[in-house]
Amino acid sequence: MASVRHRPLLLLLITLLAIPTSLSSQSIIQMPKKRHRVYASDDSLFCDSWRFSVETNDAGTWSNIPSRCVGFVQNYMTGARYPSDSAAVANFSLSFAKGVTIGGDGKDAWVFDIDETLLSNLPYYQAHGFGSETFDEASFDEWVELAEAPALPASLNLYSQLERLGFKIFLLTGRSEYQRNATAKNLLFAGYNNWERLLLRGPSDQGTLATVFKSQKRSDLINEGYRIHGSSGDQWSDLVGFAIAQRSFKLPNPMYYIA
Amino acid sequence: MASVRHRPLLLLLITLLAIPTSLSSQSIIQMPKKRHRVYASDDSLFCDSWRFSVETNDAGTWSNIPSRCVGFVQNYMTGARYPSDSAAVANFSLSFAKGVTIGGDGKDAWVFDIDETLLSNLPYYQAHGFGSETFDEASFDEWVELAEAPALPASLNLYSQLERLGFKIFLLTGRSEYQRNATAKNLLFAGYNNWERLLLRGPSDQGTLATVFKSQKRSDLINEGYRIHGSSGDQWSDLVGFAIAQRSFKLPNPMYYIA
Repeated sequence: MASVRHRPLLLLLITLLAIPTSLSSQSIIQMPKKRHRVYASDDSLFCDSWRFSVETNDAGTWSNIPSRCVGFVQNYMTGARYPSDSAAVANFSLSFAKGVTIGGDGKDAWVFDIDETLLSNLPYYQAHGFGSETFDEASFDEWVELAEAPALPASLNLYSQLERLGFKIFLLTGRSEYQRNATAKNLLFAGYNNWERLLLRGPSDQGTLATVFKSQKRSDLINEGYRIHGSSGDQWSDLVGFAIAQRSFKLPNPMYYIA
Repeated sequence: MASVRHRPLLLLLITLLAIPTSLSSQSIIQMPKKRHRVYASDDSLFCDSWRFSVETNDAGTWSNIPSRCVGFVQNYMTGARYPSDSAAVANFSLSFAKGVTIGGDGKDAWVFDIDETLLSNLPYYQAHGFGSETFDEASFDEWVELAEAPALPASLNLYSQLERLGFKIFLLTGRSEYQRNATAKNLLFAGYNNWERLLLRGPSDQGTLATVFKSQKRSDLINEGYRIHGSSGDQWSDLVGFAIAQRSFKLPNPMYYIA
């Protein structure tokens, strides 16, 4: 979690595009040419396109969600769409995993990120503006210590099925070593068991970009002889860089960005 | 355009998930637990999550759009969402481009794909089921020869602004050399001018995956001393591989997939 969040210029751009917001979603049909460009004419359309840019990584580095999109993100995260998108990704992941030939040497690996991948911090973000507030590390760390984050249901199901198929499961998180006990406790509480290894940021990893830290850890696994078939994460920094998995699976997360 | 489209197993999976389709989008709110899993309970939700998986590349290789999603894709492509998503990507692209320091050596490059990036083949796909029909190379080639594909407005605007900023613009397409004249004619017809080079598949590039072909061509440009700051394409095969741009911008395309 604790990592780089910045580029206020993009937010400024988004805010500038957001100025003509008073019309309802119907108004664009009645008078599209009069006052507005299509993409800026209502919050729902604007925010859905913002979400497209975020989920495809087109947005690049960003800090908070646009203020006009708080309601949109709330609806997305607490309604049917977030579980639906998560389940679709899990289905494609499982479909791929079932086609992998598992060797007898115990070296077939799958890498999972934790936050917004295995565990959902939605209870925390619900109390903190769904990503519209500036990230507060102290209060988030308190939440982590509670060890009460629920599982993402689609990920829990995928995790169990991968285990059954014979994959060794590695958990690779931007959380720090001092959070190991709380993290393991939370994972068990949420229903996760039998991971091969839980990899957290050690003292020498502090200040490293998530992309680099996670690539290095995957590279270590490959050097140990593991074949990383799949990797699941809600951030592109979980998936790109070097030593990447054969297939990477991007889970939805319109609430925050980690470089 | 002409490239690899396969993996019928994924389509089978999607089709199996698609069986309970008879409820309206309201039904899920009234009785979500009764008969359906959330992600399969109505076409709109299912198809939007399918689109998420496609646009993030989670779906991997796929051939035709799910049959239950024809109406969804039609609405997306012909309504406000496609232009809105395209404009959001173009805005993030331009925002990045404005921050690039342009050298005096004419070596600052931007790479554009053509189909569904600079030119829209929507008129063709409207007449061919929005990606639900099996791709027919012969009829698509006839469409290309007509040279009547309109510009994607957001891309045309981005293109002009990049040119004004001092970028050298390279067009890198999976179209073949025999389509060079029709392609150039169409680009001019649609309002594009002054590209530095139009790179098409030559005889030795036939049968190469788009990812490899496009990576090789970008690599050639880098070897010529060009700095590829940005790359825009509707397919992940336009953007990934090697010799990738500093920033890559994925445009929307829920109609077809090219490996």
